[in-house]
Amino acid sequence: MDGADGFRSFEDRDGRQQAGENPLRVAVLASGSGTNLEAIVRACEEGELPARVVVVISDVPDAFALQRARNHGIPAAHLDPRSYPSRSHYDRALVRLLEENGAELVVLAGYMLLVGPEMVEAFRGRIMNIHPALLPSFPGTHAVADALEYGVKVSGVTVHFVDEGLDTGPIILQEAVRVEEDDDVESLHQRIHQSEYRIYKEAIRLYAQGRLRLEGRRVRILPGDEGR
Amino acid sequence: MDGADGFRSFEDRDGRQQAGENPLRVAVLASGSGTNLEAIVRACEEGELPARVVVVISDVPDAFALQRARNHGIPAAHLDPRSYPSRSHYDRALVRLLEENGAELVVLAGYMLLVGPEMVEAFRGRIMNIHPALLPSFPGTHAVADALEYGVKVSGVTVHFVDEGLDTGPIILQEAVRVEEDDDVESLHQRIHQSEYRIYKEAIRLYAQGRLRLEGRRVRILPGDEGR
Repeated sequence: MDGADGFRSFEDRDGRQQAGENPLRVAVLASGSGTNLEAIVRACEEGELPARVVVVISDVPDAFALQRARNHGIPAAHLDPRSYPSRSHYDRALVRLLEENGAELVVLAGYMLLVGPEMVEAFRGRIMNIHPALLPSFPGTHAVADALEYGVKVSGVTVHFVDEGLDTGPIILQEAVRVEEDDDVESLHQRIHQSEYRIYKEAIRLYAQGRLRLEGRRVRILPGDEGR
Repeated sequence: MDGADGFRSFEDRDGRQQAGENPLRVAVLASGSGTNLEAIVRACEEGELPARVVVVISDVPDAFALQRARNHGIPAAHLDPRSYPSRSHYDRALVRLLEENGAELVVLAGYMLLVGPEMVEAFRGRIMNIHPALLPSFPGTHAVADALEYGVKVSGVTVHFVDEGLDTGPIILQEAVRVEEDDDVESLHQRIHQSEYRIYKEAIRLYAQGRLRLEGRRVRILPGDEGR
């Protein structure tokens, strides 16, 4: 497997990873409780992911995600949108902070702000988001409720690269989740969360291994050493 | 299980079915080869479905679906849209033909004409369609190609009741189908077809058993005697 063939060049990342060196430097942006952050951090700590969360940034001062970061000894930063004259200024500060921390991949984990064009441009193909529906169905902030209201029998989870649109970027992984007869928003969201933890880690792992390649708007997953 | 509680009243259909009497009278509309028709007819013949296909109607004179019907001894009718001054006239002729054959349920199996308001009104909640995607994603006639082009990792199949919109009606059943790395339209469509045969029969069975109940735009599936 040659990582140089991948979605971005990893300067022989694979070789160094196999030696256990140089884990992928991941920054996480979160506005809320950060349960996906927690799942990712633990997977890094337990060696399940060849990655390390180097900084957690939130637009919300008391987001529990920041506390989670500190609990794990990870630098946590609150970046207040109201301290900047415009969204564009805010996004440039965000990019600066990410670059100062040497972030290679930016992972959105319940980050409620739209990612502006400056961010997308600076980290194109290096920002991942997770969405609690099978995109392109049910984009936006009420995906689980919207799916139930529409009456689908199958919903799910999507990990995608972030582009300029709302939940429109190239899809990395999806997992279906059955809607049960007696589901309400809470019960369905709970099962969707379980699926989220699983496939978000898997997407980061594939990225760290240099196995994601963008072809048009399709993301091709290159085979791994283990042949899976 | 009381069928009278269902989406429509079945006048104690369950009781009569258990005695093997009075199978659901199904009409199939098809424009093409009719592979779903074939799967349904066989399931009826083999007693897998408590239903009988009483007539097959096509808008296309040489649709192979008509030949399939004749092969099974089922009345086959070609109804030519060009013989009618308007779509509305055509639809009324279609309704008449369906009623003459005592159709209780109308099943669209590769029927390429839009079902007009007269048909929907006459058979509201009694027309089923199958669509080769997980609606509301990828409605329309190129669903499989559209899904591949978008780059989804999970697509699937939807059986729904037909309403006035295009592929917008209440969803009865859905099944997810994984998109493989090397899929093209043909290979994906082939796996989707396998899923279609399975869930279309299941949807007809549930309907025949009086187990589908419309609540708002959600279709509730009532438990069966076997507790499944």
